[in-house]
Amino acid sequence: MKILHPESRIVNSWNILIVLTTIYNYIFVPFQMATKGNIIGNSFLGLGFFLDLGFDSILIFDLFLRFNVGYIERGQFVNDKIPVRKNYFQTDFKRHFLSCLPLDIVARLFYPNLEVWIIALLRIPRLLRVFDSFSASKFWEDSINSNPVIVRLLRLLIVIFLVEHWVACTWFLIRNINISFHGYLQALYWSVMTLTTVGYDNIPAGEQTVPELSFTIFVMMLGVTMYAFIIGNVASVITDMNASRSRFREKLDRIQTYLREKKVPQGLQRKVRSYYQYMWEYNRDTSTDFLSVEKYYLNDLPRSLSTQISLCLNQNLIESVPMFKGAEPQFIEQILAKLQPIVLPPEDYVIHEGQIGHEMYFINHGEVQVFSEKDNKVIENMESGAFFGELALLYSVRRTASVKTLTYCELFVLEKNDFSQVMADYPSFADKIQEIAEKRR
Amino acid sequence: MKILHPESRIVNSWNILIVLTTIYNYIFVPFQMATKGNIIGNSFLGLGFFLDLGFDSILIFDLFLRFNVGYIERGQFVNDKIPVRKNYFQTDFKRHFLSCLPLDIVARLFYPNLEVWIIALLRIPRLLRVFDSFSASKFWEDSINSNPVIVRLLRLLIVIFLVEHWVACTWFLIRNINISFHGYLQALYWSVMTLTTVGYDNIPAGEQTVPELSFTIFVMMLGVTMYAFIIGNVASVITDMNASRSRFREKLDRIQTYLREKKVPQGLQRKVRSYYQYMWEYNRDTSTDFLSVEKYYLNDLPRSLSTQISLCLNQNLIESVPMFKGAEPQFIEQILAKLQPIVLPPEDYVIHEGQIGHEMYFINHGEVQVFSEKDNKVIENMESGAFFGELALLYSVRRTASVKTLTYCELFVLEKNDFSQVMADYPSFADKIQEIAEKRR
Amino acid sequence: MKILHPESRIVNSWNILIVLTTIYNYIFVPFQMATKGNIIGNSFLGLGFFLDLGFDSILIFDLFLRFNVGYIERGQFVNDKIPVRKNYFQTDFKRHFLSCLPLDIVARLFYPNLEVWIIALLRIPRLLRVFDSFSASKFWEDSINSNPVIVRLLRLLIVIFLVEHWVACTWFLIRNINISFHGYLQALYWSVMTLTTVGYDNIPAGEQTVPELSFTIFVMMLGVTMYAFIIGNVASVITDMNASRSRFREKLDRIQTYLREKKVPQGLQRKVRSYYQYMWEYNRDTSTDFLSVEKYYLNDLPRSLSTQISLCLNQNLIESVPMFKGAEPQFIEQILAKLQPIVLPPEDYVIHEGQIGHEMYFINHGEVQVFSEKDNKVIENMESGAFFGELALLYSVRRTASVKTLTYCELFVLEKNDFSQVMADYPSFADKIQEIAEKRR
Amino acid sequence: MKILHPESRIVNSWNILIVLTTIYNYIFVPFQMATKGNIIGNSFLGLGFFLDLGFDSILIFDLFLRFNVGYIERGQFVNDKIPVRKNYFQTDFKRHFLSCLPLDIVARLFYPNLEVWIIALLRIPRLLRVFDSFSASKFWEDSINSNPVIVRLLRLLIVIFLVEHWVACTWFLIRNINISFHGYLQALYWSVMTLTTVGYDNIPAGEQTVPELSFTIFVMMLGVTMYAFIIGNVASVITDMNASRSRFREKLDRIQTYLREKKVPQGLQRKVRSYYQYMWEYNRDTSTDFLSVEKYYLNDLPRSLSTQISLCLNQNLIESVPMFKGAEPQFIEQILAKLQPIVLPPEDYVIHEGQIGHEMYFINHGEVQVFSEKDNKVIENMESGAFFGELALLYSVRRTASVKTLTYCELFVLEKNDFSQVMADYPSFADKIQEIAEKRR
Repeated sequence: MKILHPESRIVNSWNILIVLTTIYNYIFVPFQMATKGNIIGNSFLGLGFFLDLGFDSILIFDLFLRFNVGYIERGQFVNDKIPVRKNYFQTDFKRHFLSCLPLDIVARLFYPNLEVWIIALLRIPRLLRVFDSFSASKFWEDSINSNPVIVRLLRLLIVIFLVEHWVACTWFLIRNINISFHGYLQALYWSVMTLTTVGYDNIPAGEQTVPELSFTIFVMMLGVTMYAFIIGNVASVITDMNASRSRFREKLDRIQTYLREKKVPQGLQRKVRSYYQYMWEYNRDTSTDFLSVEKYYLNDLPRSLSTQISLCLNQNLIESVPMFKGAEPQFIEQILAKLQPIVLPPEDYVIHEGQIGHEMYFINHGEVQVFSEKDNKVIENMESGAFFGELALLYSVRRTASVKTLTYCELFVLEKNDFSQVMADYPSFADKIQEIAEKRR
Repeated sequence: MKILHPESRIVNSWNILIVLTTIYNYIFVPFQMATKGNIIGNSFLGLGFFLDLGFDSILIFDLFLRFNVGYIERGQFVNDKIPVRKNYFQTDFKRHFLSCLPLDIVARLFYPNLEVWIIALLRIPRLLRVFDSFSASKFWEDSINSNPVIVRLLRLLIVIFLVEHWVACTWFLIRNINISFHGYLQALYWSVMTLTTVGYDNIPAGEQTVPELSFTIFVMMLGVTMYAFIIGNVASVITDMNASRSRFREKLDRIQTYLREKKVPQGLQRKVRSYYQYMWEYNRDTSTDFLSVEKYYLNDLPRSLSTQISLCLNQNLIESVPMFKGAEPQFIEQILAKLQPIVLPPEDYVIHEGQIGHEMYFINHGEVQVFSEKDNKVIENMESGAFFGELALLYSVRRTASVKTLTYCELFVLEKNDFSQVMADYPSFADKIQEIAEKRR
Repeated sequence: MKILHPESRIVNSWNILIVLTTIYNYIFVPFQMATKGNIIGNSFLGLGFFLDLGFDSILIFDLFLRFNVGYIERGQFVNDKIPVRKNYFQTDFKRHFLSCLPLDIVARLFYPNLEVWIIALLRIPRLLRVFDSFSASKFWEDSINSNPVIVRLLRLLIVIFLVEHWVACTWFLIRNINISFHGYLQALYWSVMTLTTVGYDNIPAGEQTVPELSFTIFVMMLGVTMYAFIIGNVASVITDMNASRSRFREKLDRIQTYLREKKVPQGLQRKVRSYYQYMWEYNRDTSTDFLSVEKYYLNDLPRSLSTQISLCLNQNLIESVPMFKGAEPQFIEQILAKLQPIVLPPEDYVIHEGQIGHEMYFINHGEVQVFSEKDNKVIENMESGAFFGELALLYSVRRTASVKTLTYCELFVLEKNDFSQVMADYPSFADKIQEIAEKRR
Repeated sequence: MKILHPESRIVNSWNILIVLTTIYNYIFVPFQMATKGNIIGNSFLGLGFFLDLGFDSILIFDLFLRFNVGYIERGQFVNDKIPVRKNYFQTDFKRHFLSCLPLDIVARLFYPNLEVWIIALLRIPRLLRVFDSFSASKFWEDSINSNPVIVRLLRLLIVIFLVEHWVACTWFLIRNINISFHGYLQALYWSVMTLTTVGYDNIPAGEQTVPELSFTIFVMMLGVTMYAFIIGNVASVITDMNASRSRFREKLDRIQTYLREKKVPQGLQRKVRSYYQYMWEYNRDTSTDFLSVEKYYLNDLPRSLSTQISLCLNQNLIESVPMFKGAEPQFIEQILAKLQPIVLPPEDYVIHEGQIGHEMYFINHGEVQVFSEKDNKVIENMESGAFFGELALLYSVRRTASVKTLTYCELFVLEKNDFSQVMADYPSFADKIQEIAEKRR
């Protein structure tokens, strides 16, 4: 049998089964102890017996499976049989083995008339499997495809339900409620009513015995704590969820207030707001400078990864700019590292005719208009993949035309210095640019 | 018909109507099912029938309207009929169409004696419109003029009320309460009492049936969760509200404690405190360096926008400083980019007589006093729009007089290096300054 | 009469009186309406009448006082009578005037047998004064000497008590409880029990009338919201209180975990921990680099203030270092700006014999030992005010002795470059140092 | 007797005893007052008398012990007898002396038939010791080895239990419940039920007396506040616990969303995720740049400490790299300061054959493969302690082979400039490298 990856689909599904088994045991062991097997029979042919048998066999099978599940050490998947088995033997094996010993079945074979609560007692080692459930839920919380909020709330829900169930079982025993499903529901009703601090009504204090009073006091205090825990978790979840959005709101609110107080005209305010919202949709992050997001993320990664991502992200640009087609990959890498992204709102001037230029532009997305300011004549409209401004860089002349945006535009800027450097390294690129520039002149 | 902007006033108002219609359906469909039409009649001439008819026609009209509401794509308002219609057809149309099919009216035409709960059942597709309400509320939360806190709390309130109503309707059915408005109120009373965890009293557990007990248990747990959600939201709202204020408090507290511990004299402590409070009122933000706020905000914006804002903000200065009047806009832009704002408390020295100066000052707001330290004689008082310190920059001589603030002053500083640069680029500005300096000498 | 400062002690005390008056009215107006004056008599000689009269006269006097309280505009205290009065007339006067019209007393003069609830109705304009209470509490929250946490909680407490009181009064009316103090207490008991979600028990729903049920439902929902608000506030208060401490804890925990995981020896770990705790006591701030705190705070302030504080803080050093005594203030300012503070743990080497030195040290606090490493002989112990290391700087020779700390030491370092610069500017200082260095050589 | 360190084990254990004594007094003084000594006898031979006697003697002994416990002043442990005793005498002595006066025992000697509640009254000064408990719990919270979360929650729990106990004792007195343990439990049941807002049921309001009603109202309001406090604390604890993990989650979520939206291929996404998780395990901190963690922590510390830690951390490297063995410590220090850590994922190129190199690498952890790209032949596999890339640095030739990682690798980079500098300072090191390089060539 092949060694399985601990994050593979099959191990994950199996873990869910283990968690369900653990939940089953946490529900049924106290339930059978409280109801003495009178609701769900636990005799040799009873439903309880078959359920126990089924879930026990899962645990026993798990014992064998674990010997074939590898582990991760320092980012490395260990899949040699010997260290894997040694590792399992040294870590969880003993607990797992203890937790799946079928003591209850053995006991029943020898003493067929054993009371149900003693059988349930013998099943207590099953509860040790709870640690696996915790590590599984922690793993799901961390795994990429899941929503950690949902995992956390689900775990909280399960724990709460189990606590309510145990309290109900204990109350059942203490109050000596008549054994029936209706009786159990009454105990659960009491448990939930107390733990949620709803507290409709109860037997008058004077008529309660000492253990009843003590247990009720304990449950009420438990309820408050549990409740505080729920609220704390939900509050932290809500805070987490809204963190980046509320940072955006705060920033926007502040600049809006600022502009309003300074009596900047409405039209300009609207432009600023629209720009911010565009940027928000563009990169969902305003905690740092808007445009550096890409670099901000990629900086953390090692060079090889960040270059690969950069190539992917700008696939579009590389394919549509004619002079990049068929270029050497190293050239493209070098160019990508030099390009600075900027985002401009509509009707914004990119180049003013007559200025001395220091950079050229590639259009990543959007549409710009090239026009002559002297005779107010539209020369050309350009779209994604086009580039402009290369003329002034080559010949040190003034800009021969103005360029303004028609839509929101995402441009890449290539500075003169970086331009010269790339020209020196890749003469073929320099020739291409010069050729196109000559044509447009 | 013209294509409407999705953020235009008319579309917004219409969205409110759609939200109200959805709320109506969420209230009335369960209400009619629970009360079997005995409180609000649903016969052909009953009030319920006319209400249903009216709200349904809104939904049907909405179906046609949506074909004329454009959408935003990458910051661009799409207002061509063909893509707009295609887009609507591909996205929400099917759901909207399904949700406004008048199945109940058709059914009633064929089977006039239909029971009310079946009619209500046929209206269930109406509830699909809830997604539009969520997107509308999200839009309001983001829109600039609204207060996001109020939108969030209002949404929370509506959801809570609906949940309470549904619980009341279900309890009404389960308990078989006699059908009347008083009976409904009793059910609502039970629902609110349970969900808010008030829990005055209830039928003793032993007298409740299994579905009653189960439902009560479910509602109590729902109540706790809902409650946790309310608290989480309110807590996050309060945190958001106070964020910048409490940052200010923390900073002020810290410096106060620091000065107190170091036994700095009371008078000096008071000055520091007063300065901080002035700055707080001045820009409501202490998370960054006090004076860089303007630059901090404007840095995020593209150059064209930030220049426009800068021109607006300093309108006052530009108009009041004589030498700026009638200057070329490009010159003013260049100057504005160089000016550094500083804020000084009253009685603070700006210039000491005899020092070698490296900068000149423009008064944006406040009053300063020019005086000679040698003969302790006041030379001049200056107010907003005035400038001083230009002398030493021009002739490399020592300051000929001291300048101190009389009130809190917001000044702009122009450094010598920047000064020389602007002088070189704009000789006319240099002449003006020289002329005034000669006069004052 | 002199114009009073709005933050002076007398205006502050008066504001407390106004807040008390407002609270009185918010308590008594609804109380008298609910109890119809049967508990606290409101006849011409009754207690209620005198109370009303007394508190009304405060409000009337306030009207006159306000004309003599200045205001703050852009950090400037305006104390000219004319603008002060104009300002008051344009802002709060109308509301204040309306709120203190003694309509009830006039009405009683004309209709002596007026019912109490009508009199209470005529006192409703008094409630308009609540806005002043809010602005007063906001002012206290901001003021330096108060604890903002206590102000916020106190305000919350007052608001909660008032809400409970109003709910009690309304319930009193709706339930027709017999008019007596015991009756009022029962209503208050009901109100608090419902608003706090304690909810012991209540009249069975079936026996309640429609207004009773409706009001109860409203109060329960109010209770939950109010409760959420309390929790949100308390949670935010707790977070604020612990912010800087928990940042410290987090940092310390992280470095401890780091060192433990990397298996750094226990002794070294203890040293690091001890250093951190010393620094925590030293400046209570770990969010920024430890030692830059002083500079961090002072950077925000204008130069004149920060210089004054710097002089105060280092008073000790200036007085104890012999060569600073009697030096020119400008020299001391320049030196202070150059000194870099460092903190060293006990038994730490400051200078190693034989190394080439680039800095000299001043002892601000603590004790160091100068000793020769070659013959292991203690040369000298030095304390606050002493300085060392000047030798190597003057002659470019190697350190002639080692220096180690005996206690935790706060030192100031003067770098060679800065040293040379100050030497050039202040030859007298250079001479002094040289003189002492010659002596010690 | 030797002066004890205030943080020594013995003083800590003693403090726990003092805290327990205080808790005892806070429980028993009100209990005896409420039950009038009828449950736990307080006569000369009763259990209560012996308990009191025992705990009192602890307090009296404490008085003497404190004179031998030193204190910390500015990071320095003061252990001279005279200042220690003077300090204790001036600070806590008076309070401690007052709190342990055995007034009750004296009173009993003179008036043997004294009522129990008077004796309890005479024990009230004992309650003054609560301040010591607070300072002790604060100290535990700060101490390194404890978990501050547990300390805070434990303290909260104790305070809550005490409040519940006092409320129960007061209710016991007000309601005149029959004196028995069952009676006390009933009072405690009422107290907990009210404070936790469970509120099952209570005596109908109309049958309660004025003090009962008033006290109940007070307790309900106390309950809400206490509850808010619990929730606030628990929420802040949860937030603290998850702070660094949720920062990691947020960062990972953001980059994942970013990559997904930009349609980066699944395989590349998986690589990025795997890299992040490796880094998370590597240093548990993503708030700053991944690799600068070490420097980030060490920067705060004085040079001597950070160098010692650096030596410890890289023990492994120093021992395994052959040329470091036996090197001078100062040389190693200098090298360590220059090395830059990087982490690379598996299958990542470190060196490309034919490139001009600017740095050499040391392997701290992991495995790399050296191979020739021309003939696709594996030259060598290298592990922890090996180094490579030194060739190109020495002779300015192109890389003679490619190197790629086989596992996750933690490398240290030594830049050419730093390399030359160290070579100049330590010619012996240069020789060693050259020797090895010649061999490998």
